[in-house]
Formats: sequence, structure tokens, C-alpha cells
Amino acid sequence: MKEAKVKYDVLTAYTKKILQKLGYPETQADVTAWALVEADARGVNSHGVGRLEFYESNIKNGFNTPAAEPEIVHETPLSAVIDGHHGVGSYIARFAMNKVLEKAKSAGAGFAAVRNSNHFGMAALWGEMATAQGYIGMSFCNTRICSIVLFGKDRILGTNPMCFAIPSSGKVPFILDMATTTAAHGKVEVYERLNKAMPFGWCVDENGYDTTDVHAFQKIYREKKTGGHLFLGGSTEELGGHKGYGLGLFVDLICAGMSMGAWSRDTFVKNDGARIAQFFGAMRLDLFGKPAEIEAHVEEILQGVRNSAKAEGHDRIYIHGEKEVERKAKSMVEGVTIDDGEIKMLEDYAAKFGLEKIAYI
Amino acid sequence: MKEAKVKYDVLTAYTKKILQKLGYPETQADVTAWALVEADARGVNSHGVGRLEFYESNIKNGFNTPAAEPEIVHETPLSAVIDGHHGVGSYIARFAMNKVLEKAKSAGAGFAAVRNSNHFGMAALWGEMATAQGYIGMSFCNTRICSIVLFGKDRILGTNPMCFAIPSSGKVPFILDMATTTAAHGKVEVYERLNKAMPFGWCVDENGYDTTDVHAFQKIYREKKTGGHLFLGGSTEELGGHKGYGLGLFVDLICAGMSMGAWSRDTFVKNDGARIAQFFGAMRLDLFGKPAEIEAHVEEILQGVRNSAKAEGHDRIYIHGEKEVERKAKSMVEGVTIDDGEIKMLEDYAAKFGLEKIAYI
Repeated sequence: MKEAKVKYDVLTAYTKKILQKLGYPETQADVTAWALVEADARGVNSHGVGRLEFYESNIKNGFNTPAAEPEIVHETPLSAVIDGHHGVGSYIARFAMNKVLEKAKSAGAGFAAVRNSNHFGMAALWGEMATAQGYIGMSFCNTRICSIVLFGKDRILGTNPMCFAIPSSGKVPFILDMATTTAAHGKVEVYERLNKAMPFGWCVDENGYDTTDVHAFQKIYREKKTGGHLFLGGSTEELGGHKGYGLGLFVDLICAGMSMGAWSRDTFVKNDGARIAQFFGAMRLDLFGKPAEIEAHVEEILQGVRNSAKAEGHDRIYIHGEKEVERKAKSMVEGVTIDDGEIKMLEDYAAKFGLEKIAYI
Repeated sequence: MKEAKVKYDVLTAYTKKILQKLGYPETQADVTAWALVEADARGVNSHGVGRLEFYESNIKNGFNTPAAEPEIVHETPLSAVIDGHHGVGSYIARFAMNKVLEKAKSAGAGFAAVRNSNHFGMAALWGEMATAQGYIGMSFCNTRICSIVLFGKDRILGTNPMCFAIPSSGKVPFILDMATTTAAHGKVEVYERLNKAMPFGWCVDENGYDTTDVHAFQKIYREKKTGGHLFLGGSTEELGGHKGYGLGLFVDLICAGMSMGAWSRDTFVKNDGARIAQFFGAMRLDLFGKPAEIEAHVEEILQGVRNSAKAEGHDRIYIHGEKEVERKAKSMVEGVTIDDGEIKMLEDYAAKFGLEKIAYI
């Protein structure tokens, strides 16, 4: 089966059940099931229920302690520093973003730096918690090492995603959620399965040279510490590789630097927590005037972009977040599409935990 | 003469004198001369004294009213919205950043959205005002249209630079100052002079297709409203073009959206001000703990990046801002290097205003 459709609520309940079998307490299982199924429902399967195996291995390897509670270790009217104590990433992210929104509500803006956390799913989820209240939102996260810095060859930074979210009076807010690397590793694996040369600009080999040879790349990626993903802009200054690398490094400095946490290089190294660091922020629109007027002006700009002339062969210009909102609406009607890997994984978990097979539509 | 060296103070005084001849009041001339000469001293000649002619034309075309004073039109303990009334960009930026720092000092963080401003020089200058006080700094600016959005073909956004600045305990702070487009237009002009094909990934033609033909591109760039610069990541999603475009759009939303100002498309269109919009921010490190400890941790991360293995053919990994600091130090000893275009321009101004020829070293 190449893909299948499952009702949103069914997939959420099933995912929650598996997480509880893996050792997640109920509340942690709830927020994580939501975060994973939201990703699949939006067509972002790289961050969907397929992550369950990664989450399971993190518990086994001592990277995640599912029952751990986050602790506020420093606090001001505008800010908090949170020690996640190696707990569940999405649970900690929701805790942190709620704290940030509380502070923004009372003080105008709120910020939280988090250390000792875990994978928090799509960065968009946390930025959106702000736009849902009419606030500007942001979220950043470092990750397990996979990428090299400009003129380097060791993997020392992660995909280091950033999310900037701005409310508008239109149907959807602006939600930019992007890895600062050019391609996710999942895309490399697709090329590997297809025996296809990778696009120039994704990866470098063990000597720091651009490579399109997916098999040679995967070999060094698995066996050596050199060679890895490029940041946005690639391996040269000519195409802006210093810019993408700068954004990735900024993410590590704001997340790990401000939380006194581990930077990407030092995550997932010992079996005492993955030690992922994160940063969250929210700002009220009334810092800048009347929120309704600002939201209408934001929408006017977005509409101007949507309406501008299209390149030949294209009939639509997308605003960031639109595709995901439309796909989610479709998923709520037609069911959430899960891919072959996700299907197999759910079936394996069903066998392992003696669960009924999930109901496909 | 291909290039020449001038003492920093001599070039600053000379630039100030020309700005005053152009109609800048003394204070506006002071800060602008400083901003331009700083750029040349750091090796960023694209933002140096060569901008004087652009500044002159902005006055002539009704885009800039040099004596106009910025006005605070909305204010909270954390924030200000400033109407620049078409005044001098660097003068307004300094005013806004001083306001932001004042607010950060008293409240922990400060933000300013600015409308009806003008070109503010290097974005780094304003982020650095924050790191000089040990604060995190940021600055963003929209610009005259030059770039196209992913799957578009009209020029509707600018180079839309962003600066993120983070203090460290090392010799230099982290200062990321980047246009969100891949290449500045000045670089295209260099290829035009050299009769050389542009790198693939910089620009698209009037139909929205990638082009490397610099002469054909310059023709449509001058005569049509279609064709333009690409954002970081280029013209495809495969190489992340949606990410660079997202960053550029974010800059317009935070600058123009929050200030109720003009977005890039609507700048430089009527002769009643260029209407550039900007956004500035600062956050105190003690929002997150002991500043000295955080700065030391930031430096530890930067040092880890510097010390990591180098790609073949490279002997150094740069941190953002380092090159500029080193070049500035050299310029203070050996003099500031100005290029042939800048030399000719200064000589033309000398003739026009009856000034003594500038003293070269």
C-alpha cells in the first residue's frame, strides 16, 4: 500500500495510544499526538506520525524522559528560561509558548529560552499559537547535527529551523516555517531509494566539495563525521551560502546561547538527554497601533503579492502557510494521508502492542 | 586611478561637507557621513560614499527632505512607531535605535517600527548599537523594488535586508547583516562591465525564467517592470527559493506592516517621499540570566564553529561580522580604500562645489 487515508481523530487517538505504550504520560501523549497528526494533515509527513520510531529510540537511548516536567529556572516580567529536564519536546514547547503568551498579554511581549528539550515537531505549531491570539509569534530550534558551515566539512550544526508568524485579517496568517538548510535529510533518502543524483547545492562530501552522488554521500553520512547538508545558498558566497549558514548559526546562538543549553554539535552525544535548545517569542500588535488596522494592512500586502504577475508555467503565487492550511481542510474532509513508511510503522506497532489495526477510510 | 586610500577622518569630514552642500543639516550630515564611511572602512563599498549621488537624486526627486524630523506617533513602554516624514534614513535609524535601547534599558526589550524613512546604510550599524551595550539587536528594512517572488515575474519586493546581532565575550559580536536576495544589483553591474555571464540563480528574465545573460537582463531591468533578482535559494523550491522569498516577505510585513507604512512595491513611486519602512529591536541579555555567562557561552559556540575542520582549499571559517571588523582595523591604520567610481564622484563634487581635492594617502 503506497498510501492510505485515516480520519484525523482516529489517527490522533491511535497515535496517542502508541505514545502511551511507549511510556508517555497522558498529557504528553495528547500534545505529541496532536503535533504529529497536524503535520500529516498538513501534508508535512516528514514531521508526522512517522516520527514515532525516532521518539521510541530516544527513550531507549536515554535522550528522552517522557514523564519529566519542565522547570522555570529564570524569570522576568518579559521572559523565562526553561529547563526541559529531557522531557517531551512538544509538551515543553507548549508549556513555553503558553508562558510567552501570558507574558505578552500582561507586558506586551514575551520570550522563552529552553534547554534540555527534545524534538518539538513543526516549528509552525508554536508560532501559530501566537497568531491565534492576534500576536506576532516566533519559534526556533536547534537539532541533531547534519549540516556543515560555509568552508567547513564537519557536521556541527543542525537543520536549525525558524518560524516567523504574523497575523493578518485574511483567511490565513503568514507562517514562515523553514529549515535553514536547503533540503531535509528525508529528501536525500528519497533520492537514494530512486537511485537518482541529488540536486547540486544540497550536500558536500567528506572533503567539503559539492556532491550529487547520493550513495557515496549516504555512506560517509552514516560512517564519518565529515560531509553533510548545506545551508540555504549552498557552498559558495556567490550564491549566498554565508547567509544560510548565518541564519543557522543565529538559531543556535538564540536557542542554546540564551538558554545556556547545548548547541547542535553537543546534542545527542551522551545518553543523558538529547539536550535540544529552543527559543520562543510573541509580541502584541497593539505595541504598534490598532491591531485590526495592522492586520488589514498585512493582508493588503499579502494580497498584493498573491495578485502579482505569474512566471510562465505558474498560475499561483503562494503565501507561506497557505498550502498547509488548504491541505489540512482537505484532510479534515477526506481523511489524513499517511505514506507507506507510516503505514508499515503503525502496523508494526499494532502487532507489537496487540492493538487493533487502524481503521482506514 | 583604480582605487585610492583616504584617512578615515578626512573622508568623513569631506563626505559631511558634500552632504551639507546637498542640503543636509549638520546633524543629519554627521550621522550619514559616519554611516557611509563606516561601510567603506569595512570593505562594504556598495554602501559607502558612492551612495552620495543616490542621496542627491533622492532630494531632487522629492524622495528625501533632509531637514525633516522624525515623529513618534505611537508609544508604549516597550515600543514606538515613528513617522520619518521623509527625512534622512540614517538619522531616523539612529533616532529609532536610541529609542529602542532606552526602552530595553528600562523595560527589558524595545521595538520600533518606522514608516516614511529613507535608505539607512548597512543594517549592521543599527544592530551593533545594541551589542555595544551588551544587548541583542535587530534591524530590518524594505527597499526599492528589484526582486521577484517565487513563481512571480514582476519586481514587487526589495533586497529587504535583515540584521541579527548577538553580543559575545570574544573580540567581536555575531553580526549577521544580509540582503534576503541572493546578489545585490551592484554585482550584476560588475558582470555587465566585464561582459560576463551571471551565475545561475541570481536573476530571472521578463518571463520569470532563470537567466545568466547580463546584457539582456539589464535591458529589461531598465525598461520593464518584469524580471528581477531572485531571493536566496533561487527560482525553485528544490533549492529553497520559497525560503528566501519568505524571509524577504517577512521583512516587508514586519517593517511596513507594523508601521502602517509602504511595502517595497509602493516605495519610490510618487515624488512625495521614498517611503521606506524599517523595524528595530533590542533585548537585554539579563532577560535570560547573567549576561557575562551568556556572552561567554555564545563565544564558546562561535569558537567551536571557528575551530571545526575546514573544507579542502579553505583555511578559515568566518563568523559573521569578523571580516568587517578586521578590515576596519586595517582601514584605521592604512586608510580607507575607495574605488574608481567613488574617486570620480568625489572629484565631480569637488568641482561642482568648489572644494579642495580630497587628500589621498
